[in-house]
Amino acid sequence: MKRSDRLIGITNYIIEHPMQLISLPFFAETYQAAKSSISEDLTIVNNMLQNEGLGYLESVAGASGGVKYVPQYDKQQSETYIESLCRRLEDPERLLSGGYLFMSDILGEPITVRMIGRLFATRFASLNIEAVVTVATKGIPIAYAVASFLNVPVVIVRRDPKITEGSTVSINYVSGSSRKIQTMVLTKRSLEQGAKVCIIDDFMKAGGTIDGIKSLLKEFDAEVAGIGVLAEAEDEEDERVVTDYTSLIKISNVDVRSQQIDVQKGNYFEMEE
Amino acid sequence: MKRSDRLIGITNYIIEHPMQLISLPFFAETYQAAKSSISEDLTIVNNMLQNEGLGYLESVAGASGGVKYVPQYDKQQSETYIESLCRRLEDPERLLSGGYLFMSDILGEPITVRMIGRLFATRFASLNIEAVVTVATKGIPIAYAVASFLNVPVVIVRRDPKITEGSTVSINYVSGSSRKIQTMVLTKRSLEQGAKVCIIDDFMKAGGTIDGIKSLLKEFDAEVAGIGVLAEAEDEEDERVVTDYTSLIKISNVDVRSQQIDVQKGNYFEMEE
Repeated sequence: MKRSDRLIGITNYIIEHPMQLISLPFFAETYQAAKSSISEDLTIVNNMLQNEGLGYLESVAGASGGVKYVPQYDKQQSETYIESLCRRLEDPERLLSGGYLFMSDILGEPITVRMIGRLFATRFASLNIEAVVTVATKGIPIAYAVASFLNVPVVIVRRDPKITEGSTVSINYVSGSSRKIQTMVLTKRSLEQGAKVCIIDDFMKAGGTIDGIKSLLKEFDAEVAGIGVLAEAEDEEDERVVTDYTSLIKISNVDVRSQQIDVQKGNYFEMEE
Repeated sequence: MKRSDRLIGITNYIIEHPMQLISLPFFAETYQAAKSSISEDLTIVNNMLQNEGLGYLESVAGASGGVKYVPQYDKQQSETYIESLCRRLEDPERLLSGGYLFMSDILGEPITVRMIGRLFATRFASLNIEAVVTVATKGIPIAYAVASFLNVPVVIVRRDPKITEGSTVSINYVSGSSRKIQTMVLTKRSLEQGAKVCIIDDFMKAGGTIDGIKSLLKEFDAEVAGIGVLAEAEDEEDERVVTDYTSLIKISNVDVRSQQIDVQKGNYFEMEE
């Protein structure tokens, strides 16, 4: 097989298997090429991934070594992308009662959701995350997008136990903004004890839901290494019960009556590299 | 930029943008190359995609023409993949009361879900689908996977209306197996009138849920061009209210007491090309 063909095959394979150690012999066998040729191919792929701002190939030396594609999306491109998402979101027609924002159309777009996942994965790639935890329903697509770039499973906390899940652990928690008592449920066999996880959700106001997830995860001795929310409502900052999180978007000055809303970049872009 | 670099960039772009018409000038400008060079690149990419059993590039002639990546996963590879999924699923420990099967671990794996999406997209790619419709919660990840390959939005039917959704259309329907009356809700602005859609879900017993979705979609004058379920319970065949569907997996002879279960390939593999 020619180099040009191998480069296409390798690029596709690597993009589909991020954060996974792939051995040189695997590629050598798949494409019937010498390991030295594969090694050169990988150098070309690595350079181009970096040029395109998509991340890099990490080399792992030794007998059980190989390469691992680490998705690291370019900061400038990320900022441009989120800026354009902010412009789409600040349409006053999106305002719903309770200070919520209609985002279902945007969260229904697979390419948008994948890009959001790419950004959180960029931030969390170095944390050795073992699972992405989210709560039904709206956080699910973003959680899968993040998980697909981190190559780890998704664990879904539910509001209601389902017969198809087997035995569960549940907690009651107080919703941050409405002060209502709510329930959260997680199937016992869905998460191993002591796992290192990140929590992903679409929207955070006071943070009661995420605080509830954290309490539930304590029952599994899980370590929460990161928290990512697509949008945070900045007006709720004073009442916030969750402080250590990453947001892509900040929504503030929501005034349903005068149809006013400010949508800005989140704290994702404030942190140092 | 060298051909080898362009091939990597083009492959990545095409994989991330399936079913989307991409003009030659777009690539020519992005990679600062002559259109004739890009045209040759695309021929190489097309041949390799076909070799790898991943689909092909469709050429669209004319001034507004270009290429479109049509994901068509190889039949033999699909069959091998689903066979291995069947073997994982027929573990008697997965049996839950009510004849359900524990699949949350498998549906939590992004790579598995993406492959399932790839297979349904292969079947539905020629139908000009405009949206993928699913019902919360378990069908959501599969629906996004299908939608990402078809490059269309996902629309999520809910069991309960949410304040963050705006005005909704709802219907009551009778669950096929439990004969209980249930409710389904779809936000008005989530789907355009007259759209051509496919319905995706994880599990089908008698088909009451999917029949409910179909009724709800009638309120939007939507045309249901395809129905895809990951697993169907074959024992419920006699009571089935939905007949025109594609399944990847068939579950039969479920006997919770004797811990017995048969998991076989679904009707996906029975149909002609």
